[in-house]
Amino acid sequence: MAIPYPQFIVSEKSPMEAKIVVPSSPSSASQASPPPPPPSSSMSSVVLTQDELKKIAAYKAVEYVESNMVIGLGTGSTAKHAVDRIAELLNQGKLHNIIGIPTSKKTYDQAVSLGIPLSDLNSHPVVDLSIDGADEVDPFLNLVKGRGGSLLREKMVESSSKKFVVIVDESKKVEHLGGSGLAMPVEVVPYGDLAVAKSLQALFEDSGCVAKRRTLDLDGKVPFVTDNGNHIVELFFKKDIGDLNTASDKILRIPGVVEHGMFLGLATTVIVAGELGVRVENKS
Amino acid sequence: MAIPYPQFIVSEKSPMEAKIVVPSSPSSASQASPPPPPPSSSMSSVVLTQDELKKIAAYKAVEYVESNMVIGLGTGSTAKHAVDRIAELLNQGKLHNIIGIPTSKKTYDQAVSLGIPLSDLNSHPVVDLSIDGADEVDPFLNLVKGRGGSLLREKMVESSSKKFVVIVDESKKVEHLGGSGLAMPVEVVPYGDLAVAKSLQALFEDSGCVAKRRTLDLDGKVPFVTDNGNHIVELFFKKDIGDLNTASDKILRIPGVVEHGMFLGLATTVIVAGELGVRVENKS
Repeated sequence: MAIPYPQFIVSEKSPMEAKIVVPSSPSSASQASPPPPPPSSSMSSVVLTQDELKKIAAYKAVEYVESNMVIGLGTGSTAKHAVDRIAELLNQGKLHNIIGIPTSKKTYDQAVSLGIPLSDLNSHPVVDLSIDGADEVDPFLNLVKGRGGSLLREKMVESSSKKFVVIVDESKKVEHLGGSGLAMPVEVVPYGDLAVAKSLQALFEDSGCVAKRRTLDLDGKVPFVTDNGNHIVELFFKKDIGDLNTASDKILRIPGVVEHGMFLGLATTVIVAGELGVRVENKS
Repeated sequence: MAIPYPQFIVSEKSPMEAKIVVPSSPSSASQASPPPPPPSSSMSSVVLTQDELKKIAAYKAVEYVESNMVIGLGTGSTAKHAVDRIAELLNQGKLHNIIGIPTSKKTYDQAVSLGIPLSDLNSHPVVDLSIDGADEVDPFLNLVKGRGGSLLREKMVESSSKKFVVIVDESKKVEHLGGSGLAMPVEVVPYGDLAVAKSLQALFEDSGCVAKRRTLDLDGKVPFVTDNGNHIVELFFKKDIGDLNTASDKILRIPGVVEHGMFLGLATTVIVAGELGVRVENKS
């Protein structure tokens, strides 16, 4: 998706406090290199793809990484850019003694291929900083995550983190969780997964909830399997589900539910790359 | 364990309302047959083993089973007797059209070997009656279950049951859950299991909680694996853990926890075989 970009601004607080202005050539934000330093005079119109926005947010997030940190490495198309960038800075000698805690097998493979030293939660139960994408972000920095299927390990790592920086493009901002109309995923054990889906749908009947098991085939018979060997039930809501902590507890009380994709109160910073530049929103 | 048995009484309400008096020969309660009918004059002293008590409770529970029911089949040394008894009544033609929902692979194998027709929760999300043992029963019929490692499927099936009959011998009655000093099991995903154990222990620090991963070896390196491919963290408490529903929610909120062994408000009837006979306690 191409987004018209009259001027690209990176700001800690608002677009008015510009720090970086991206030049007019979109090719400068290529896969292999960071966004170039800002030529102060360039304010001409540019068009950045959604992936380029994700990359800009990711690079901004990696500015929070310091040497000697244990870093939670997120999963998904946005987090991938952050992992690439961390590896780049390690290879350049600008960071050292980083230990990565990958949140999925996919991120593990990426990090291994890039030479980032890795460990796990058992060896490092306290993580200094995690960086990850999100599917939805509400005004209170609550998130929906896990459309990529990695919500459980992401939540385990990110809830163990002193700081959790979320990186998104503007399209992920919503008025309330579920408001995008897209799926809110729930990880469930394979045994009795359809019965659990029925229970979940009944739980949010008043919100017009429809629950579907995520499958790999059109017939809906081959279930998607998570890194933990579980299945995913996707919840679609027609209306606001009300108090999120109450909803969370109700979901978790259903036997067979392993975890859900609402990340409540976990994000400490959200970096949003949008049409007006990069906004950094901090937990109040 | 042999228990002196001055007289064995099966009662709906109290030992005073005797219905069945077990004769003096302990061998009458053998593995293959039900407890014999009561000879009304026999009040002489008998000694029943703990297993015989379990069997008597199990047979009493199976009196609740009616033809055409979907029955949750529990797991463990007590539930095994109930499954045997259901098969016996099916073979005798005293029950027909029973569908069993096994709560573990072990019970599945037992039921298949006995010829009990089986299904699962996806096909039968509403169960008429479940029968299962328990590790602890408090005065409000709350339970600790799962020392056999099958707590998750047990809770899935039993929370889907219209009636849940629990069968125990007297030794399982406690003043408060955790009061036996034995383990309260928590099923956790393998990833980060030791980190989750630390979080669980910290959660109940005030109750002197010690959390240990259940292992198959003395060195503690080979984890026990549940039917769902998960691990078990065992919690040992020195003191009462306070409000059980609050404790339940706190445990379930820890990412990586799949389910815990507290069954709160699920049992509708508890059948206790003890020194004074069989007591039937119903949920008020």
